[in-house]
Amino acid sequence: MQRARSVEAKQQRERAILDAARELAEARTVREVTLTDVAAAVGMHKSAMLRYFETREQIFLALTAEAWVEWSAWIRGNLEAGDGRDRGAGQGRDQGAGQGRDQGAGQGRDQGAGDGRDRGAHAAAVIARSLAARPLFCDLLAHAAMNLERNVSLETAYAYKTSTLEQVLLVTDHLRGLLDLTVQQTRDLVGTATSMAGAFWQMSATPGSQLEQMYTEHPDIAHANVEVEPRLTRILTALIAGMRVNP
Amino acid sequence: MQRARSVEAKQQRERAILDAARELAEARTVREVTLTDVAAAVGMHKSAMLRYFETREQIFLALTAEAWVEWSAWIRGNLEAGDGRDRGAGQGRDQGAGQGRDQGAGQGRDQGAGDGRDRGAHAAAVIARSLAARPLFCDLLAHAAMNLERNVSLETAYAYKTSTLEQVLLVTDHLRGLLDLTVQQTRDLVGTATSMAGAFWQMSATPGSQLEQMYTEHPDIAHANVEVEPRLTRILTALIAGMRVNP
Repeated sequence: MQRARSVEAKQQRERAILDAARELAEARTVREVTLTDVAAAVGMHKSAMLRYFETREQIFLALTAEAWVEWSAWIRGNLEAGDGRDRGAGQGRDQGAGQGRDQGAGQGRDQGAGDGRDRGAHAAAVIARSLAARPLFCDLLAHAAMNLERNVSLETAYAYKTSTLEQVLLVTDHLRGLLDLTVQQTRDLVGTATSMAGAFWQMSATPGSQLEQMYTEHPDIAHANVEVEPRLTRILTALIAGMRVNP
Repeated sequence: MQRARSVEAKQQRERAILDAARELAEARTVREVTLTDVAAAVGMHKSAMLRYFETREQIFLALTAEAWVEWSAWIRGNLEAGDGRDRGAGQGRDQGAGQGRDQGAGQGRDQGAGDGRDRGAHAAAVIARSLAARPLFCDLLAHAAMNLERNVSLETAYAYKTSTLEQVLLVTDHLRGLLDLTVQQTRDLVGTATSMAGAFWQMSATPGSQLEQMYTEHPDIAHANVEVEPRLTRILTALIAGMRVNP
């Protein structure tokens, strides 16, 4: 009983740390959140917090794994074969009222089952929108391979990798059925979508960023700003169409 | 005369710093090279070095700009319309003897001018190989947007951006002529190729990396290792084919 309570207390504490880190990263960006910031937000001493997570990177890697689970479930639950039943791109906790503009991802485009090309364009648009609607996931995706996986123990990196691979497999299986692609093509599609979302998000001038300031002060190069959703939609649409041409 | 000599001396010193940083980053990775390492390699005090470059990031951003110029020139000088004249993917200073395996990017594939699809597949293979043959460029590409552009002054970031945009424009113009794509499609193609090269390189188990150790100790997930060149070739081939289908 004592032990059960202590396990539960530990889980609650871990949850509180993860939630605090997520809120801070959503408000700023991943790179701007330190371990000290998280400790302050959750009201713990840094040394005490390190009993729950070995490094700052382990916290953000855990958030990345959770974001994969959430995104994977959303895609599988919402992306249908262009039958107009897609229910917006928002995350579970954001849904409900006020999400009107996201209703129906295939608006007026391929309301019926659609032919192959329409189905591909529809899936591309929904995938792009689902990623653009998750800025923290995009931010984490770019950081994961470059920074987060490298500042944790081998076992933590392995646990993260197996968890993520499981989600990739689930999304891949779902998309393959919808799009009639090979396993390798679908894996390449998911790899491209998530890698590009991460990379493009880093290149986009988010509010308050130095990039935004640069494009404001130098309108001659403002066209270089990357708009994540339209660019990702175009690229994924062409990618899926091309995969169908050359199986 | 005195002034001319001092300008020249300054340029030589800058060149020595950049060369030292490049050699260190090639031997390790960008993330593992500190300002102290560069100062030691070039035989200067760190404080003296900061008169030439404001931060560690400015050094690597300058190397990224140079790598763009080199890659852009290589693509424009070597990627022809599938006529078998491509001269390998190596960088200028690596060429010559011992590069036999890189000779002829379109081996036996589309030796003639080729039809549209062949030309696209040929260009995809050459672009993928040219990037995979430049691991430091890949490494820098991933770091540029995420870390390097953010730790320099606005003016340095702006100078980097205009220089890079110029190279993107040159490559875009060249590829557009070869592949018969729109301006926006070609820009998306170059953006995808360079972003994916950066992202995939970070995900690949380079020799001596913790990732390599993980895949060795956990062969069950070794299939998740990303091989940059074949994966990038597949994706760019499909992307170009799809762009031709949906102009």
